[in-house]
Amino acid sequence: MTMKLVLLRHGQSEYNKENKFCGWHDAELSDQGRQEAADAGKALKEAGFDFDVCYTSYLKRAIHTLDLALTSLDRCWLPVYKTWRLNERHYGALQGLNKSDTAAKYGEDQVKIWRRSFATTPPLLEEDDPRNPALQEQYRSVPKEDLPLGESLKLTIDRVMPYYNETILPQMLAGKRVLIAAHGNSLRALAMSLEGMSEDEILGFNIPTGVPLVYTLDDEGKFISKEYIGDPDVIAAKINAVANQGKAK
Amino acid sequence: MTMKLVLLRHGQSEYNKENKFCGWHDAELSDQGRQEAADAGKALKEAGFDFDVCYTSYLKRAIHTLDLALTSLDRCWLPVYKTWRLNERHYGALQGLNKSDTAAKYGEDQVKIWRRSFATTPPLLEEDDPRNPALQEQYRSVPKEDLPLGESLKLTIDRVMPYYNETILPQMLAGKRVLIAAHGNSLRALAMSLEGMSEDEILGFNIPTGVPLVYTLDDEGKFISKEYIGDPDVIAAKINAVANQGKAK
Repeated sequence: MTMKLVLLRHGQSEYNKENKFCGWHDAELSDQGRQEAADAGKALKEAGFDFDVCYTSYLKRAIHTLDLALTSLDRCWLPVYKTWRLNERHYGALQGLNKSDTAAKYGEDQVKIWRRSFATTPPLLEEDDPRNPALQEQYRSVPKEDLPLGESLKLTIDRVMPYYNETILPQMLAGKRVLIAAHGNSLRALAMSLEGMSEDEILGFNIPTGVPLVYTLDDEGKFISKEYIGDPDVIAAKINAVANQGKAK
Repeated sequence: MTMKLVLLRHGQSEYNKENKFCGWHDAELSDQGRQEAADAGKALKEAGFDFDVCYTSYLKRAIHTLDLALTSLDRCWLPVYKTWRLNERHYGALQGLNKSDTAAKYGEDQVKIWRRSFATTPPLLEEDDPRNPALQEQYRSVPKEDLPLGESLKLTIDRVMPYYNETILPQMLAGKRVLIAAHGNSLRALAMSLEGMSEDEILGFNIPTGVPLVYTLDDEGKFISKEYIGDPDVIAAKINAVANQGKAK
């Protein structure tokens, strides 16, 4: 017996459009992002996918991506669980800065390290910065000591994987078909763990927006294979676009 | 200590626009309905309301009303629980028929009885009717013996109130602030029980679409008072519009 796990990265947000570091800033989907989400649901429906339970982050670009995909799938009524643990990587003091400007100021190499290296944290927020999640209503139900001031991918994994292992995986082992709508880096964190990627491998691994990524796992949840659902040319172009975001213009 | 409970009836749906008996037909919100939902969230925000947990039905016009209201409230990340027990009253074989045509055929009095009396069920669906919820994917996780072929308001109360008493009220008693987005008749069922209305009283009681109805309850959940949030003239016009839907044109 094998199991499927479907990951969906949110479509374009108003912040993505401006090529800014978004992180935990709660940007809304752009019109293009809404269309990507609806199309992802259609692609899953056409490929015969169905689900029993869904997970998403506390951020509306992921929550709305999930809802739009579920609407296309005629599955609005499925249970949806929201958790801060599936949030995007927290970009610390970089949050809100333009990626090209940051590259021009600090150099492309430094930006690539901040964006794609495994253990390097971005410059941290000051405690009294209004961007500190511990000061925000949105995280009032989360223990303050769990909330970050900025995260490396390693730190992102450290808060994503306990939720996956303790909450999502048990549902899958009980036979539930799971859809996760989340973010570039929270999904990379999950992918790295599922596939057992090295730190070098994860540096080159990008998940395109709005393209369902389907993992096939064995009956204990061990990785067997993965595939994207959709047009291969569109997927290749999208992967390339993500890789180029950090370049100075 | 008193508690607040906020009820929100979904805004106009594509079916409402056509003045049809909608029931469990899963119609989407119209553009006007989306605007009503967003406005309801704004009105709640301006009046200083906040919530901890939300409940809605399995029907997308209520699910999307809740999401749009939460978006206006900056509360997309709140937990939302969906249950078939908050669905609209099931209109049996009337589902999909135009209300004015039905009034012309059966008479306004019969339609008023079907729409507004307490214990009269509409003509029931045949078991093999594709509108039978027991045959629909949407209700696959509900025990078949719980699913109706058509409901009176009394039968609607019989399936709404166990969920309210066993799931929602305990959350309120534990201090959680609750928002329920649902339907004209599932909310009337709840209102009748909360207020201890007579069968005559409920016949004349209509909840307008997209206008938050706030109940103040004592610390055991007993009714103290209620009020609508919004412009009184708009609310009066909306209540009048609902009462007139069953008239032949």
